[in-house]
Amino acid sequence: MIYFDNAATSYPKPPAVGEALLRGIGEYGGNPGRGGHRLSLAAAEAVYDCRCTVADFFDAPSPECVVFTSGATAALNLAITTAVRRGMHVLLSDREHNAVARPLYRLAREGIIDYEIYPTGGDVVREIERRLRRNTGLVVACHVSNITGFLLPVEAIGALCRERGIAFVVDAAGSAGHLPISLSSLPCNALCAPGHKGLLGVPGVGIAILNGWEGKREFLVGGSGVDSLSHTMPSALPERYEAGTLPTPAILALGAGLRHLRHYGLARVMAEEERLRARLCEGLLSRRDLRVYEPDNRHGPLLFTHATVPPEEIAGRLDNVGVAVRAGYHCAPLAHRTVGTPPGGAVRLSVGIGNHPREAEEFLALLSRVLPETQ
Amino acid sequence: MIYFDNAATSYPKPPAVGEALLRGIGEYGGNPGRGGHRLSLAAAEAVYDCRCTVADFFDAPSPECVVFTSGATAALNLAITTAVRRGMHVLLSDREHNAVARPLYRLAREGIIDYEIYPTGGDVVREIERRLRRNTGLVVACHVSNITGFLLPVEAIGALCRERGIAFVVDAAGSAGHLPISLSSLPCNALCAPGHKGLLGVPGVGIAILNGWEGKREFLVGGSGVDSLSHTMPSALPERYEAGTLPTPAILALGAGLRHLRHYGLARVMAEEERLRARLCEGLLSRRDLRVYEPDNRHGPLLFTHATVPPEEIAGRLDNVGVAVRAGYHCAPLAHRTVGTPPGGAVRLSVGIGNHPREAEEFLALLSRVLPETQ
Repeated sequence: MIYFDNAATSYPKPPAVGEALLRGIGEYGGNPGRGGHRLSLAAAEAVYDCRCTVADFFDAPSPECVVFTSGATAALNLAITTAVRRGMHVLLSDREHNAVARPLYRLAREGIIDYEIYPTGGDVVREIERRLRRNTGLVVACHVSNITGFLLPVEAIGALCRERGIAFVVDAAGSAGHLPISLSSLPCNALCAPGHKGLLGVPGVGIAILNGWEGKREFLVGGSGVDSLSHTMPSALPERYEAGTLPTPAILALGAGLRHLRHYGLARVMAEEERLRARLCEGLLSRRDLRVYEPDNRHGPLLFTHATVPPEEIAGRLDNVGVAVRAGYHCAPLAHRTVGTPPGGAVRLSVGIGNHPREAEEFLALLSRVLPETQ
Repeated sequence: MIYFDNAATSYPKPPAVGEALLRGIGEYGGNPGRGGHRLSLAAAEAVYDCRCTVADFFDAPSPECVVFTSGATAALNLAITTAVRRGMHVLLSDREHNAVARPLYRLAREGIIDYEIYPTGGDVVREIERRLRRNTGLVVACHVSNITGFLLPVEAIGALCRERGIAFVVDAAGSAGHLPISLSSLPCNALCAPGHKGLLGVPGVGIAILNGWEGKREFLVGGSGVDSLSHTMPSALPERYEAGTLPTPAILALGAGLRHLRHYGLARVMAEEERLRARLCEGLLSRRDLRVYEPDNRHGPLLFTHATVPPEEIAGRLDNVGVAVRAGYHCAPLAHRTVGTPPGGAVRLSVGIGNHPREAEEFLALLSRVLPETQ
């Protein structure tokens, strides 16, 4: 199989990831932070070790900044809902995934915030600056678009936000594990990412790295292991936002994924993915019956449509010859509108560390077979 | 090791649970509901199969009622926050875990609800009935106390709630997998449980079985795989409450845990756990320096304190001889207050399917060694 759906979830996982899952119910099978016996303490230490690995991978100021959530969606819901206060004005880009847009739509429907969408076609920082109001309290940006790999200037956006004292949330779902991200040079207050995409872990865990976070409220609340007598969650990070039992197996799997990435080398991942993407892009562009959206991007997914054959049909034909791609809107209707796909969306190819260079040629040949070029 | 901390998380897991985790990143390693290729469809089918297994295990009206969450805490946050409307009066028992109490404390602090705590010492249904107001819209009860195994008459409470048109949420964290639960005889609108305790799955997944649920609002929002163009989550269950990528490995592990339970037989689990618990209880009661709280309960954990040695110290000494128990408040300060433990809480023993009958005598001998009876 040629798996080009790494933006949905990376596949296959490094063998160490499976081993970590099993350790999470074996030697680390106790409930971390919920007991003083050796099995619980071992689990707590293993989880803390992964927290350190995450902090180290992203140059976070401390492991305590790393909040484990159930996924990127929960991380973004956490960051967005705890950042806002009533009457706040919020800016989001025209590339955002529904995991960013829907929490904001909801807050707006409830009358808590106003939001505005800034365009990313031109000078993004300037577009944001023009839209700032006295009550603008939050800017959200994806780092890399999940449909075309469009790269937002998050460092510059972050610098503007820091200068103006505005919270900045970055959705790194499309970049974490594919591009270097250092919180020492990226001034953001919350960096959110899933464990199971570029970071090579499994679904069931995500991260919100909170840096100088002024949480306006609690998020999920419940057992915290500490301060049990209090009516509120503990005020310290990460406990404040980690109610209930942590998903040890998925956390350990994420740690294993990060160690694999570190060992493999992020520079090598980037170079390999970029080369494969470029070759695929070239092949798609050579066909006059296909339209490739934003072909000049260097990272992330490739998005295309055919002159007449619908995306779902193309994805189905590719599946029949053993190629996994994803058709439709990719939970990012804003981004689809921005790049101008037709109703029904487009076909997305997303490469990953598990792909082999030869798969570009193989894919292009299979595509020609199931979708012969129309003249 | 003698593992008597099954109320924190069950240990060890059946071998099939580890195998299911690996299948969740192998043959079912696609993103379920996020693509039409075979790997994604296989994952979606495997997840649906687990939904059916859960529905079948609890006699739920349909697999669509089964909402997968990140755990029982998220399930209870979901049920409680989507059940209430402004001005509502809510009743919770004096046995509730912080996963129930803290969401309600928070809603009360925000001025959205009033809550009242009903006592469980006497005729519970009557105590609830006396507290009903015109605006009472929600009653919450744990099925089995997570500290002493106290059993609440949830069927009768549910009947009252149904009669009065009040939503009823059951926290089954302490009972699921230990006692039979059938939604055909238990009239509740939401049954919440973790995957990793009695159901023998792993941390990272929980369930909220919603039955005749009138959700007043959305919960976590984000990508839904379907209806991507909408600003809101899909209205149908389970999609409405399942934003973002589902934790396939943990879901498959839960399915494996349930199949193990079904094969082993819940009646046998109950009989074995009851026998072991009774023998432990008898041994604890035979010592005059220990106080056992509610020794007449037949299920769930055993809770005790020593005349002079603090719970943490006892748990530490037991750990030194290879016995895992949990000391403190067990995230249930309400329940501790109800049963009257001193400051610092108590020591909890919680047995499970993984324990051997001989561990009762072994434990009691070890306890006598590390904590000789004082006269």
